[in-house]
Amino acid sequence: MGHKDKRWIVGVDLGGTNIVVGLLPIEGGDVLGLRIMPTDSGRGAKFVVNRIVEMVEASITDVLKESNGRRDQIAGVGIGSPGPLDTKSGLVINTPNLGWRNFPLRDLVSNALNLPATLDNDANCATYGEWWLGAGKDVDTLVGLTLGTGIGGGIVLGGQIYHGISDVAGEIGHMTIEANGRRCKCGNYGCLEAYASGPAIALRASEGIEAGVGTVLQDMVDGRLEDITAATVYEGVVAGDPFATEVMKDTAKFLGAGIANIINILNPEMVVIAGGVTRAGDHLFIPLRAEVRRRAFRSAEERCSIVSGELPGTAGVVGAAAVFKKETYGRV
Amino acid sequence: MGHKDKRWIVGVDLGGTNIVVGLLPIEGGDVLGLRIMPTDSGRGAKFVVNRIVEMVEASITDVLKESNGRRDQIAGVGIGSPGPLDTKSGLVINTPNLGWRNFPLRDLVSNALNLPATLDNDANCATYGEWWLGAGKDVDTLVGLTLGTGIGGGIVLGGQIYHGISDVAGEIGHMTIEANGRRCKCGNYGCLEAYASGPAIALRASEGIEAGVGTVLQDMVDGRLEDITAATVYEGVVAGDPFATEVMKDTAKFLGAGIANIINILNPEMVVIAGGVTRAGDHLFIPLRAEVRRRAFRSAEERCSIVSGELPGTAGVVGAAAVFKKETYGRV
Repeated sequence: MGHKDKRWIVGVDLGGTNIVVGLLPIEGGDVLGLRIMPTDSGRGAKFVVNRIVEMVEASITDVLKESNGRRDQIAGVGIGSPGPLDTKSGLVINTPNLGWRNFPLRDLVSNALNLPATLDNDANCATYGEWWLGAGKDVDTLVGLTLGTGIGGGIVLGGQIYHGISDVAGEIGHMTIEANGRRCKCGNYGCLEAYASGPAIALRASEGIEAGVGTVLQDMVDGRLEDITAATVYEGVVAGDPFATEVMKDTAKFLGAGIANIINILNPEMVVIAGGVTRAGDHLFIPLRAEVRRRAFRSAEERCSIVSGELPGTAGVVGAAAVFKKETYGRV
Repeated sequence: MGHKDKRWIVGVDLGGTNIVVGLLPIEGGDVLGLRIMPTDSGRGAKFVVNRIVEMVEASITDVLKESNGRRDQIAGVGIGSPGPLDTKSGLVINTPNLGWRNFPLRDLVSNALNLPATLDNDANCATYGEWWLGAGKDVDTLVGLTLGTGIGGGIVLGGQIYHGISDVAGEIGHMTIEANGRRCKCGNYGCLEAYASGPAIALRASEGIEAGVGTVLQDMVDGRLEDITAATVYEGVVAGDPFATEVMKDTAKFLGAGIANIINILNPEMVVIAGGVTRAGDHLFIPLRAEVRRRAFRSAEERCSIVSGELPGTAGVVGAAAVFKKETYGRV
């Protein structure tokens, strides 16, 4: 049976919180057989691998049943995982969130499913997914940022994920934007992540309230400041709260400084931003684009669209499948 | 006469202060017929083009005489110029230092010499020169920084200059490292250039003296603080002056934050630093590397050498010739 007869690629998006699995038609299209389950990493690496394998088997069964297909129409599995990792050997080198070290994730999944598999960084996959079938489908060169608990980044140059010499490239969240600024979880000071991640947004809101600012946010969490999240701030923005709007605007300014750096260095056609914070829409994007215009070279900034991701929830699955396709067939 | 019989490429490095011209053997080697003259840009664009053409003719004459060669052994001319520019159309779009706008530099030089020519950014050329025949000759992927009046940057990925979508890529000097920091000449706040360029180093030294610090620097300029330059600070470091050493260390820290950003984003094999400040040697590089280690991902920082350029004064000429070679023959 030749390549041409393969019809499906499985995408696996392994995160610290959830595992998302789905099947993509090899030529691209909607994600089918989508499944989401908690990672439950506390139950150990073996448990997580088993859960991935079971989810993949269940997705495959669903899709083949629906399409009257055969098992040998599944080309293989693309896996996206938090890193750092070694894409060539398929090892997860070290993930603080999962507690793994030098873990042969790719081969364990591949052997259990008896299917070839590839491994790449979760943020790279999310960016590659947006490039293949999402916001970036008409561009060659784009940078992706995922704003969540951390800030993940990926770089696609000329239709390929750019990995760098040791698979670290694209660590945009740990770019210094305030050399003597806030301490970041990574131990350094002034990382973008320390200003524009979900927890950073929540922290700046709590600090403002502790300093005596009057805001609806306090009521929204019944006075329990520790319950404030980036989502609370977003809801405050929607409710028209001036302080929440200010926090969002500050976030946009820090993000804008980071994205201007990316634009001055990489001069991409597009920056795609994903994550819950993008629900703030214009409240985020208008001040963000203004800050980028203020900081980036005009001839670079004019040529770069800064947009929301178009595949919320599935970009990682789509991109993991795209990595498999690229590595197996040489093109996506 | 075929490509194989061509023996020389001319490199032109056009700067705000000087024009440097020389010939490179097509297979690489020492720069021959090297000529340096002031740019004298105040005398107008036509004057500068004529000066370039005369310098090139004189270099060619020297080298052909020396080697008993013929004019048709000159393959063509690579030109490096301050930007922004349009490499494809050979236009200098806008150079504040030279006062040019949409100036067809490449074709004017090419026509006057009756030789094919290419045009690329000066910082790209300097980086490409170090990649071809200098510090980076054994690596595929490197980033170059030139510390001078400004901070220029260039990116070489897989043996090619990375230009981005509109030839702006590599503008490392205008990376924000202090979002609310010092105002930069470019109008923004907190650019790397506002902390680590020659004038920025001199300014921090003057500010310290004005604030009452006791230092040998003051005597070195006979009390005329406006005469302090980065070179004065470097001489103070060599003389063992604690304040000058502190200024150099601060410079190294800011540079380290910028280079850590580059390493986290691009994960290159090498960062090459050129410019007068590198004469400070260990006084610069030891605190610089320490700051990078503090800020960059370990698996990226461990794989990246941070070194001085090996072609001071000629990297731009060598790289301009390398660009011509790459564009004409497809490889360097």
